[in-house]
Amino acid sequence: MNDTFYMRLALEEAWKYQLLTYPNPTVGATVLHKGRIVAVEAHQKAGTSHAEVLALLAAYETMTNESVDFDKFDALKAHDFLLSLPAGFFAEYSLYVTLEPCAHEGKTPSCASLLSRLKPKEVIFGIDDPVEGHGGGIERLRQAGIAVRRGVLEEACRVLIEPFLIAQKRTFVLFKLAQTLNGKIGGGVISGKASHRHTHRLRAVCDRLLIGGNTVREDRPRLDCRYIDAPPPDIYIYSKRTTWDKTIPLFGIEGREVNIGDSLAFLERPGFVLVEGGEGMLHALHDRIDWTLHYLSPKLSSNQISYNIDTQTQFLHHASCGEDVMLWSRWLGHRKTGR
Amino acid sequence: MNDTFYMRLALEEAWKYQLLTYPNPTVGATVLHKGRIVAVEAHQKAGTSHAEVLALLAAYETMTNESVDFDKFDALKAHDFLLSLPAGFFAEYSLYVTLEPCAHEGKTPSCASLLSRLKPKEVIFGIDDPVEGHGGGIERLRQAGIAVRRGVLEEACRVLIEPFLIAQKRTFVLFKLAQTLNGKIGGGVISGKASHRHTHRLRAVCDRLLIGGNTVREDRPRLDCRYIDAPPPDIYIYSKRTTWDKTIPLFGIEGREVNIGDSLAFLERPGFVLVEGGEGMLHALHDRIDWTLHYLSPKLSSNQISYNIDTQTQFLHHASCGEDVMLWSRWLGHRKTGR
Repeated sequence: MNDTFYMRLALEEAWKYQLLTYPNPTVGATVLHKGRIVAVEAHQKAGTSHAEVLALLAAYETMTNESVDFDKFDALKAHDFLLSLPAGFFAEYSLYVTLEPCAHEGKTPSCASLLSRLKPKEVIFGIDDPVEGHGGGIERLRQAGIAVRRGVLEEACRVLIEPFLIAQKRTFVLFKLAQTLNGKIGGGVISGKASHRHTHRLRAVCDRLLIGGNTVREDRPRLDCRYIDAPPPDIYIYSKRTTWDKTIPLFGIEGREVNIGDSLAFLERPGFVLVEGGEGMLHALHDRIDWTLHYLSPKLSSNQISYNIDTQTQFLHHASCGEDVMLWSRWLGHRKTGR
Repeated sequence: MNDTFYMRLALEEAWKYQLLTYPNPTVGATVLHKGRIVAVEAHQKAGTSHAEVLALLAAYETMTNESVDFDKFDALKAHDFLLSLPAGFFAEYSLYVTLEPCAHEGKTPSCASLLSRLKPKEVIFGIDDPVEGHGGGIERLRQAGIAVRRGVLEEACRVLIEPFLIAQKRTFVLFKLAQTLNGKIGGGVISGKASHRHTHRLRAVCDRLLIGGNTVREDRPRLDCRYIDAPPPDIYIYSKRTTWDKTIPLFGIEGREVNIGDSLAFLERPGFVLVEGGEGMLHALHDRIDWTLHYLSPKLSSNQISYNIDTQTQFLHHASCGEDVMLWSRWLGHRKTGR
């Protein structure tokens, strides 16, 4: 077992929260104590404790067999608690983290300054913090006498935060599709409850949900986040049509903005747009999709419709999602500059 | 980190060799030394060292930083080597194994008797050896003073050896399909090199390859194992037709038997049959498929054909296979007795 093995555990955990951390990057961390894995955690939601902090708290709980009595996701409380531990508590610990610990004080205190005070034996990370003005974590750690290594599974760690990096320059476009194992979409519910909940979590963090006019008319969707009890996303209906049946449920949801039009110019702005639709939207966005997320349901079906489009993709990650399988892919229908 | 975590590592490793160990069961093992993971291994091929043996050898290499100088897959040499280590060498080791260590002396010596002499601190396994006359491993270990726990991830460990269990009573039928992400099959090469190699490895261990007559006529395949330099499988062409174009390459491969007919009675016999074909064969075998293996290729395509059939499946495992993703599913188009 080596650096790669421990970093892979951190990556696998982080992928569970891919894009759910938006506008933050997705980050995972593994903690070892004298070679024994004592924690594998990931950042889960912007504004809450970072992966390193959650992992150190979990390591504390594993080693002491005690549970902390505060909300672990409250970053300020978590930092205070870790800093209140006896000096040298983490002296025999190694921390693997997919991204360089942040040197930037944002909604939460800086992890690099926290670590420089906790002084774990070593910190191993995948990629340098690529955000301008956010670097410098590595120097802080080294100044504190912590052994630091970088570049473990660098490419996989970079892919993990690709949505975050793109979203800072222009809109990151995720096209979500639910299909049967033999590629049928539409005509009734396809995916399972866990996939529906996951979609609602993505809707809750995206800047906007983009949907095709046909899908709106045919499916008459609500497009809310009711399964996770979160506010609904704003909607952009991609259509030339100007008159709409306002009894379609999505129009009746409180607290959302609905825009309708056939311009995709807003995708030039930084942000994260989730797209739901079928073949028509895939073609309309052929040159603009960044990633796809396929929920594959465990059935083969003959009476639902296929979809046709030609493009190469690249599989990035696969995971179970209840009875379904989630497949994250990079869309290679186009090659964008500035990647 | 707990029993489940370590057993899951063993399961994940074992799935890499699913059915490639035929006629042996697929088995994985994880070794810890004082809480540190020092080996994760799996049984790879019938007649070679079992998972426990490979894992203990790897643990030895990790801990001593030395490599053994013999063929690890030679079970006799491996057992002899492990028995030659100083008494008590493994006293601080924990062994996780998906299946109860065998008490049966077959092509290789019994793992239970080996372990009862090596005396690791504890052995934790998933399921009891279900083969009549093969049990008793647990008693041997306990008599030797080894702490034994059983039943960790029992259901997942049972699924792992389902093909092995079925193949002892009647033919285990694996239907293999290569498709694009949007479910298109046929009309040119779909999957990548790693998937082709994997298929050839399955062909090399199956008792027979079953293929539809249409596929033979349209694709004119060789159906050999050239990518892994192994002997070709025997073939059964499912067809009513009696005259065949013998220039179709599969007929010209040395060292194989080719049978043609429209009876599937041979599937009642114990064994493992790999099926390759399209929609027609899926329908013909609708009530007889046990599992499917889908190779998903990272592309969406419009000019290849869809396939239609109605059935529920259950996803069992997903893994990368080069640029493709492999999806193992249980076919629920029927319910067989005797599972």
